[in-house]
Amino acid sequence: MELEFLRRLRSQRTTSHPEVILGIGDDAAILGETVLTVDLLTEGVDFLLEQADPILIGRKSLAVNLSDIAAMAAVPVAILVAVSLPRNDRATAVGTLSPLELGERLFAGIRTLAAQYHVAIIGGDTNSWNGGLVLSITAIGKPTEHGVTRRSGAKPGDRIFVTGPLGGSILGHHFTFEPRIREALHLNAHYDIHAAMDISDGLSLDLARLATESGLGAILWETAIPISGDAKRMNDGMTPLQHALYDGEDFELLFTVSPQTAETLLREQPLENPLYEIGEMTKRENVPIRILAADGILCDHEPKGFLH
Amino acid sequence: MELEFLRRLRSQRTTSHPEVILGIGDDAAILGETVLTVDLLTEGVDFLLEQADPILIGRKSLAVNLSDIAAMAAVPVAILVAVSLPRNDRATAVGTLSPLELGERLFAGIRTLAAQYHVAIIGGDTNSWNGGLVLSITAIGKPTEHGVTRRSGAKPGDRIFVTGPLGGSILGHHFTFEPRIREALHLNAHYDIHAAMDISDGLSLDLARLATESGLGAILWETAIPISGDAKRMNDGMTPLQHALYDGEDFELLFTVSPQTAETLLREQPLENPLYEIGEMTKRENVPIRILAADGILCDHEPKGFLH
Repeated sequence: MELEFLRRLRSQRTTSHPEVILGIGDDAAILGETVLTVDLLTEGVDFLLEQADPILIGRKSLAVNLSDIAAMAAVPVAILVAVSLPRNDRATAVGTLSPLELGERLFAGIRTLAAQYHVAIIGGDTNSWNGGLVLSITAIGKPTEHGVTRRSGAKPGDRIFVTGPLGGSILGHHFTFEPRIREALHLNAHYDIHAAMDISDGLSLDLARLATESGLGAILWETAIPISGDAKRMNDGMTPLQHALYDGEDFELLFTVSPQTAETLLREQPLENPLYEIGEMTKRENVPIRILAADGILCDHEPKGFLH
Repeated sequence: MELEFLRRLRSQRTTSHPEVILGIGDDAAILGETVLTVDLLTEGVDFLLEQADPILIGRKSLAVNLSDIAAMAAVPVAILVAVSLPRNDRATAVGTLSPLELGERLFAGIRTLAAQYHVAIIGGDTNSWNGGLVLSITAIGKPTEHGVTRRSGAKPGDRIFVTGPLGGSILGHHFTFEPRIREALHLNAHYDIHAAMDISDGLSLDLARLATESGLGAILWETAIPISGDAKRMNDGMTPLQHALYDGEDFELLFTVSPQTAETLLREQPLENPLYEIGEMTKRENVPIRILAADGILCDHEPKGFLH
């Protein structure tokens, strides 16, 4: 649905304002000296209210936006929070809450993460309705002197990296992940990052997007893909590798650099957590992604993933 | 609910970023050289999907944001659109629509109004869920050389104006109103506007907010309040005056100027539609609003209105 709509939105662009540097099609938009992104989270899709502490739901609603700001290597500055609360008392993981109690607890989760990243809550819109819980956060960031990172900048021969192991986030990581702000700023300040995005809909689908935006293809090295402990614990008929490829909401950075920078990164491992080199960009092929299997065979890969 | 939350948000401000000039409590926030506002519209509260053309719903979701930008006398520049579509086909005023058809038609309404005001659609987030239709638009504007207009700038003795007749918007005006962008920019460029906001929750409640933000009281001149034809047609037990005071979604500008500027405005009537002088600001009293009735008696007024 997202892709379909983005295509239509792009083809129907109504106006090309001189200040719009980067519009639809990246993790965030750039308007003048400002990076902007919005994510709308809904009950039953992004969280199950009965099974979650609303503090974690509030935290997640901000964290996914900070992850988009990180994908652009910008510094998050401020947010606007729009919420529609159910009118009735609702069961949650911390007991039954009134609309006001629910709102308070959501906001506590937002506030704590906002404070951690020095992000100001500058406005919002709070409503109630006879429907499920909806949160929509708009995040505003500022690019640094090193510019922003985009999906479209990858070059043939680039090596592909991720900032952490993938898959199985439904077991908890989708609530507790740390948006890769510090990592993105450090990488962009010290290394020549060609292209970057965050993995929100799964490695398979998101790498296909990065490749498409860059007008290239990509080869994933099957044995190099870091698989999270949660992906191995899922035990639901899918293999751990499939979880790492197709599960959504890892919120790790996916980025590409030249082979020379790749060597430097692997030698220096400059981040708190290890960086993983998982493949390489190629010229455009008939499929956006191929997978180089353990046995040395290169197979076409059908991009699919987690569509919210 | 909105007021309650705004109070809490204010008291819990986590951080005071140097670029945040104006935070929660006005129609829009100011961050550096940018004016930002968000409005979230939900089915059953802001529109009835079965009874409306989605083109009008899309139009309204943008128009309410443009009205907030107008309240600040800023120029709208760009928007981010977040939508959550119902997963099933839904009945509307133009027949049963699939999720994609519904999305297309909503977007057509947004796009047409955006083009009219030269506003770029720079990003968004489109989802679907097992719930009602939700639209959240974030609008970004730029202040002009004349600065922004705020709720808090009214002075004792100021005259209170509105840009059009009030009440009964539920009969159609809440879908078709023209955001007062041109009017706000013209007034702010040529006259010394002390305070301004848009009337979204009804004259009674919104004037009380303007008075409170300015640390003042206000007197409404009952016989001067312009009453719309729709308010007179409502015929539901409330008087036309009550509709003009308490109905929401007029989206006219409410502003205050000095008595001298008021005279000039009434003489020049510089806008396409007449301006109405409806009262005056006073020093703070024990109630935010009093009403001067036709018989010359001044009564305390209990602010109330349309809470979305």
